[in-house]
Amino acid sequence: MDGLHIIASLYRCRGDARYLVDAEPLRAFCVDAINRSGLTVVDALFHRFPGSDGGANGGVTGCIVLAESHLAIHTWPELQSVTLDIFACNHSQDNSARAGAVVDDIVAIFKPQEIARHDLVRLGPGHQIPAPLVARA
Amino acid sequence: MDGLHIIASLYRCRGDARYLVDAEPLRAFCVDAINRSGLTVVDALFHRFPGSDGGANGGVTGCIVLAESHLAIHTWPELQSVTLDIFACNHSQDNSARAGAVVDDIVAIFKPQEIARHDLVRLGPGHQIPAPLVARA
Repeated sequence: MDGLHIIASLYRCRGDARYLVDAEPLRAFCVDAINRSGLTVVDALFHRFPGSDGGANGGVTGCIVLAESHLAIHTWPELQSVTLDIFACNHSQDNSARAGAVVDDIVAIFKPQEIARHDLVRLGPGHQIPAPLVARA
Repeated sequence: MDGLHIIASLYRCRGDARYLVDAEPLRAFCVDAINRSGLTVVDALFHRFPGSDGGANGGVTGCIVLAESHLAIHTWPELQSVTLDIFACNHSQDNSARAGAVVDDIVAIFKPQEIARHDLVRLGPGHQIPAPLVARA
């Protein structure tokens, strides 16, 4: 159950705005990014919320079950922002770099001008909790 | 997009072992706990993995899309452990206590002898990142 849990917030996104409001291309991109990384998609659930005006400017929440744990992503089009986290356990190998590659791919499409990221190393029983690495870029 | 993200690992669980290996009661319990808390379930995706012997002792991964963000949970029956996280954004009200109530309910059924928990306050752009509260019980 050891593994890396990356938690990131992407602010002032200047990338393709379609990914902020349209569930299907966001789902497809995330699935492809996971496949490219070498992690394994089991199933995915994406939901588009109605916009504040009842229209199409609502955000998207997506959850992907991985063989190695999960990815969750939320878009906030009204704030041009995205929150995401990915937990990749190291069942048969160290998957930390794979989780990082997925985050990097998602950052690349949203093109945020500011990022807050926590890298939380999760360990089994009896370990000290390491301080998370915190970065703001 | 402000909100509380609680990340917890539950070790040496001594509760009802059914919840470690059986997706449907775990899904039903999590959905009920969320409803009790006042948060809102949009949809849920639970998957049971085959055991290491190909049998029924595999773990479960569940993701629940909330109107307020998400819950993700993974069971590790071979380690009698559970990892979970819940992110509840404060779109219309402060949902921190509701997220905490869901975690408390899940802890109550698994009865872990050891818990590691991070409470991560997520904020919008331009804020400093607060240090997460870390607790080991």
